[in-house]
Amino acid sequence: MATDKFAAPSPYTQKKPEHHASDFKHQEYLLGSGLITSRAKDVPLNLQHINVALFALGRAGSIHLNNVMKNPRLTLKYIVEPDREKLLRVQREWKLPESSILSPEEEDKVFQDPSVHGIIIATPTYMHKDLVIKGLKSGKAVLCEKPIAENLNETRECYQIAKEMERPLLCAFNRRFDPSFKELQRRARSGEVGQIHLVKTVARDSPLPSIDYLKVSGGIFHDCAVHDIDLVCWVIGDYPTHVFASAASFIPEIGAIGDHDTVAFIMKFASGAISMTDLSRNAVYGYDQRIEVFGPKGMVSAANERPYNLTSSTVDGDSQPPIQYSFPSRYYEGYIAEVEHFCDVIQGLDEASIPGKNTMNVSIIASALEESVKTGRMIQVKY
Amino acid sequence: MATDKFAAPSPYTQKKPEHHASDFKHQEYLLGSGLITSRAKDVPLNLQHINVALFALGRAGSIHLNNVMKNPRLTLKYIVEPDREKLLRVQREWKLPESSILSPEEEDKVFQDPSVHGIIIATPTYMHKDLVIKGLKSGKAVLCEKPIAENLNETRECYQIAKEMERPLLCAFNRRFDPSFKELQRRARSGEVGQIHLVKTVARDSPLPSIDYLKVSGGIFHDCAVHDIDLVCWVIGDYPTHVFASAASFIPEIGAIGDHDTVAFIMKFASGAISMTDLSRNAVYGYDQRIEVFGPKGMVSAANERPYNLTSSTVDGDSQPPIQYSFPSRYYEGYIAEVEHFCDVIQGLDEASIPGKNTMNVSIIASALEESVKTGRMIQVKY
Amino acid sequence: MATDKFAAPSPYTQKKPEHHASDFKHQEYLLGSGLITSRAKDVPLNLQHINVALFALGRAGSIHLNNVMKNPRLTLKYIVEPDREKLLRVQREWKLPESSILSPEEEDKVFQDPSVHGIIIATPTYMHKDLVIKGLKSGKAVLCEKPIAENLNETRECYQIAKEMERPLLCAFNRRFDPSFKELQRRARSGEVGQIHLVKTVARDSPLPSIDYLKVSGGIFHDCAVHDIDLVCWVIGDYPTHVFASAASFIPEIGAIGDHDTVAFIMKFASGAISMTDLSRNAVYGYDQRIEVFGPKGMVSAANERPYNLTSSTVDGDSQPPIQYSFPSRYYEGYIAEVEHFCDVIQGLDEASIPGKNTMNVSIIASALEESVKTGRMIQVKY
Amino acid sequence: MATDKFAAPSPYTQKKPEHHASDFKHQEYLLGSGLITSRAKDVPLNLQHINVALFALGRAGSIHLNNVMKNPRLTLKYIVEPDREKLLRVQREWKLPESSILSPEEEDKVFQDPSVHGIIIATPTYMHKDLVIKGLKSGKAVLCEKPIAENLNETRECYQIAKEMERPLLCAFNRRFDPSFKELQRRARSGEVGQIHLVKTVARDSPLPSIDYLKVSGGIFHDCAVHDIDLVCWVIGDYPTHVFASAASFIPEIGAIGDHDTVAFIMKFASGAISMTDLSRNAVYGYDQRIEVFGPKGMVSAANERPYNLTSSTVDGDSQPPIQYSFPSRYYEGYIAEVEHFCDVIQGLDEASIPGKNTMNVSIIASALEESVKTGRMIQVKY
Repeated sequence: MATDKFAAPSPYTQKKPEHHASDFKHQEYLLGSGLITSRAKDVPLNLQHINVALFALGRAGSIHLNNVMKNPRLTLKYIVEPDREKLLRVQREWKLPESSILSPEEEDKVFQDPSVHGIIIATPTYMHKDLVIKGLKSGKAVLCEKPIAENLNETRECYQIAKEMERPLLCAFNRRFDPSFKELQRRARSGEVGQIHLVKTVARDSPLPSIDYLKVSGGIFHDCAVHDIDLVCWVIGDYPTHVFASAASFIPEIGAIGDHDTVAFIMKFASGAISMTDLSRNAVYGYDQRIEVFGPKGMVSAANERPYNLTSSTVDGDSQPPIQYSFPSRYYEGYIAEVEHFCDVIQGLDEASIPGKNTMNVSIIASALEESVKTGRMIQVKY
Repeated sequence: MATDKFAAPSPYTQKKPEHHASDFKHQEYLLGSGLITSRAKDVPLNLQHINVALFALGRAGSIHLNNVMKNPRLTLKYIVEPDREKLLRVQREWKLPESSILSPEEEDKVFQDPSVHGIIIATPTYMHKDLVIKGLKSGKAVLCEKPIAENLNETRECYQIAKEMERPLLCAFNRRFDPSFKELQRRARSGEVGQIHLVKTVARDSPLPSIDYLKVSGGIFHDCAVHDIDLVCWVIGDYPTHVFASAASFIPEIGAIGDHDTVAFIMKFASGAISMTDLSRNAVYGYDQRIEVFGPKGMVSAANERPYNLTSSTVDGDSQPPIQYSFPSRYYEGYIAEVEHFCDVIQGLDEASIPGKNTMNVSIIASALEESVKTGRMIQVKY
Repeated sequence: MATDKFAAPSPYTQKKPEHHASDFKHQEYLLGSGLITSRAKDVPLNLQHINVALFALGRAGSIHLNNVMKNPRLTLKYIVEPDREKLLRVQREWKLPESSILSPEEEDKVFQDPSVHGIIIATPTYMHKDLVIKGLKSGKAVLCEKPIAENLNETRECYQIAKEMERPLLCAFNRRFDPSFKELQRRARSGEVGQIHLVKTVARDSPLPSIDYLKVSGGIFHDCAVHDIDLVCWVIGDYPTHVFASAASFIPEIGAIGDHDTVAFIMKFASGAISMTDLSRNAVYGYDQRIEVFGPKGMVSAANERPYNLTSSTVDGDSQPPIQYSFPSRYYEGYIAEVEHFCDVIQGLDEASIPGKNTMNVSIIASALEESVKTGRMIQVKY
Repeated sequence: MATDKFAAPSPYTQKKPEHHASDFKHQEYLLGSGLITSRAKDVPLNLQHINVALFALGRAGSIHLNNVMKNPRLTLKYIVEPDREKLLRVQREWKLPESSILSPEEEDKVFQDPSVHGIIIATPTYMHKDLVIKGLKSGKAVLCEKPIAENLNETRECYQIAKEMERPLLCAFNRRFDPSFKELQRRARSGEVGQIHLVKTVARDSPLPSIDYLKVSGGIFHDCAVHDIDLVCWVIGDYPTHVFASAASFIPEIGAIGDHDTVAFIMKFASGAISMTDLSRNAVYGYDQRIEVFGPKGMVSAANERPYNLTSSTVDGDSQPPIQYSFPSRYYEGYIAEVEHFCDVIQGLDEASIPGKNTMNVSIIASALEESVKTGRMIQVKY
């Protein structure tokens, strides 16, 4: 036979193949089986095991609840939540001790408990600043849903306190922990496409948020665009000098509260690099989150993900199930990795990957984009 | 503008969209938050919470360990494992009570503990039968890695005892719990392609198993083909009348132990339906597991899955990271669902989905395929 | 068997299936076999067969040469080209009569020959206007590569003459004839995504054009962006009220001639719709041309095309051959359809699909984008 | 910016990129422009231009008609066809001289015309042998649709005469000329996957052929399976030693004429390689033609092709237009390349790529598969 000449030595005589870097689920089993323990020897005894408290059981809070409970490195020592019924349900479900559920009035127990190493804040935005500061001042590491505070000055104050207390303050930009985006950033920054010329991101929300939520969301630029701004700047490794945005309100209820449902923006960087992003509040086909990075050596891009890869072929053509419906499913692995990173930071195995300067610059850029829409002009960003 | 005429009422005036059936990860959060609790009211008080014991911490055992520990419905009451160091590491990692780790000599504690509802058996095959029988006889539900026993007679005995004890005995055909395959089966059986004409499966292993494992594996038909036989019969809803197989040993070490690394087989069903499967022990590009079902109305097929959807585009073309490396990553969600199903069965919320007759017939078919290779003839299967 | 109940009547007792609208290659065979002849009866006798002349044998000219020669509806009566050797080679290759090859000095033969129905102009831009006017004034239909003339006034003059002479003047926006883009536009305009909210196009050139070409190209906005402007306006069915552009020159030779190699632009429409486009002169992975249209009912998008669908799977992942290398291969079918449309227009079976107003507005928009780059401001477009 | 360090020399200072091997459409333009002329110098003067005759204007004949007419290397000197109306329509459409259309009674004009270099036979099968022999004996090269004759003995006679007359006799296995399959074969044979372990092909017909056609088709093994047998043996570079087939007739009209609509077969090769093929007469989702080749270094596979790459994304998921509807569209490029190959063979630039031994062995294997279905046994193939 024509290919017999390619018969090769038995694979048993060759080097055993290794797990590809992408096999992160396998890593999870090794961790869970205690098979990756080398890190332990670098961890101070009092941090060998981590105790955390979780503030609030809303959408993000529920995700963190699950991931903390499933992570052998962590014990959830307290949950603070006003809804008593929710607390009891969660306590029963996960068989938590009664001491672990607290109403907001009792929250000082968290800050006074020296065994608590870190807190995770998933409350409404207006409560962030206070909890961040209390946490830091009582010596806890803090993981806080974005934004850290309601305005730039307060955010700066929070980071100032973090610096003084020498405690990590981590803003939960969850997309950075998504395995695909993380790998894309790594590759882009290692020169896979050469010097970056263009970055494009798409972020279309699903499902359409409620008007009640939108009213307190801070507007599409501070609520949504910040993720894309952070992603683009993280990939490029710089902040833009100029930005331009255009926006529309096709949904009347959204226009009525002075917000936009559709946004397009361009950012320019000192190197000449350009970024383009488009946002929508209502992608009916699912949570549409894509990115591509282009340069003189080519392109690297991340497509949407699907819960399963079935294809149905009929006289009408081929069809697949929708992409992931919303952020909890799309960033399922990212949320797990975010909490892992928080553990690493607490145990001193890694630096907090999102510096305060970054969080604040992202906020400055979001405000510049808002100004661009209002003035119809390109805005020079001042940091 | 030409499409202004399509401006529609605000989505806020419309029915809220619902999560697509494929959004199973969202389901997990709801479960973990105790938000899906309606089932509880149908569950007897003594089964509201489930205690299980796990036998052995090998590859499959480590997977079950993680999934049991992360599942709020379950408490892992005992782990039985000869390797003391492994036990201690796992105990420390998950902060388990000392009473929970047992050497095989102490295994009777499991069977004598009335609070244990079920056992999960992931030991070497030769120990299965004994543990299955002990478990059933002490009134436990049993989830056992395949095969249930080393031969058909012993398997029959196990199911006979299960019947007598009125306890579920579930053979862990993990592929049935894979979200894609499960949905494919559901669609095929609901007539999406019409009467089934053809089913094709591919199952190529990655990485190449060790020769030590292969020596005790029972041979490629009983170790690998059984999964495809089960899958095909489950999709078609019948067992074949005739089978034919062809096999080769390209890897000399595999030939030397009388086994095959490459197999192709055809099964014929009473309805006229035909199935085709090919197996390999060594797919270097990853764990290749596909299925397609064809009929007069079209085709439904399941493709391989990838850890992330990055595409790199260069002068040489486009490229993607490898498909999942091996079964722990490929069937990550399936293993979780398998344990969920075991919970449902224990709590009386669902019937065991894999009857004993099925497990035994699959074994009979695997033996018929072996005979076909030896005789070079199509074999009529006798059940 | 479980799906036997879906056994259906024989397909022979059912209506015969029809060719899907996408089966345009099949159409070609029917045409070539003279099997689609119904149109003939609507065509005046003197137009039953069409004679055309082709000006120039450069890149676009060679493509038209092939498509005219292969189209049974057309006879190529003359080719006008200064390079005598090229002319002789083509004459010999296609066995053309000697009378058919002309030097530019002899071009009047074309205009004086009453049997010539149409001319195709593929010369350098500076010669367009003259040939267009001569063609129209001698009563020929004209298909001209873009731009029709070197500036807006001259373009207007050309269309004015076309109107006076009642002869079609068709600007060769080849992308409109691409089967995918045409179908996408049809679907978008029929409301498939609802009222259009956002249109995105990508147009990255491959290979990098020569500096000599770029010097006479008219700049990236008039040479490249016009295609995207035309595409977006054609899909949306309107022209933008405001535009904004950002540009960079990463390749020093391109910067040195005052042009850009990287461009991003946003267009705003009266309805609120927004478009985003990015351009590059140098996509090393192939000719990257994509479009997506987004609205409240979903999205329709056109991906790149590949010469063949091979996938290679190795330890390093999966890979496919590059997308089409350049425009002749990417728009292979589009160029054929463009000439077919020209035939339909000449025979009176269809209207010229690209009105003069469109061609001129596209040019106005390109100039506004240039101005936006220079001023760093959003420009209100005046038509 | 982080990637500024990757800024590289201007691409203008680098080697110009070359067209990828896959850019075969570009090749066509070069050919049509007479720009690839080097071959001419190796071609005898009397073969510089090729005259051919075409027998019959059915489905395959219409395809050849178009491709001959569009190929500058060829002149269609005669068409022989009983349907006078068809002939006249084609003559008018392509402006052929009256002398070029012949009824079968006049076919001797073809054989007596010394200027005719080759003939293309696309008549019903029963006429093949006679025309082949007449063609060869009058010194013409012959391209004949499969099968060459109605049985093996007559086929052998035809090849015997071809040998005696030293004229090429080419059996039109069109799939070999498909760009994807050709590239796949080239890669497989150059060792891309190592020694071949497994080849799989799918060939599902669309649309369902008429019963009238099936009655004279020679049965699914000689009408359809031969293409897959040829493809597999061509890829592997050997003929099988043993074969096994299973078949069913779900469509009663097909069962009634003693034929099958659904087939699965396995072939074994001396090297240990195994092939698997499945056939259907009725794939409602389009003409499904796939192949994969597997070995110790990985897999190379060819997917179906689509007329265009549109994706529609809605609440119900993503969908694409159907794959190519039938063979004329799917093998559009293959048919063009087949005629090009015939030109190369006539001009002495290439050897006929499909030897007589191959054509005959394929037929022997098809008969062995038929016997396997009848006897339910694996058949040892005797060549």
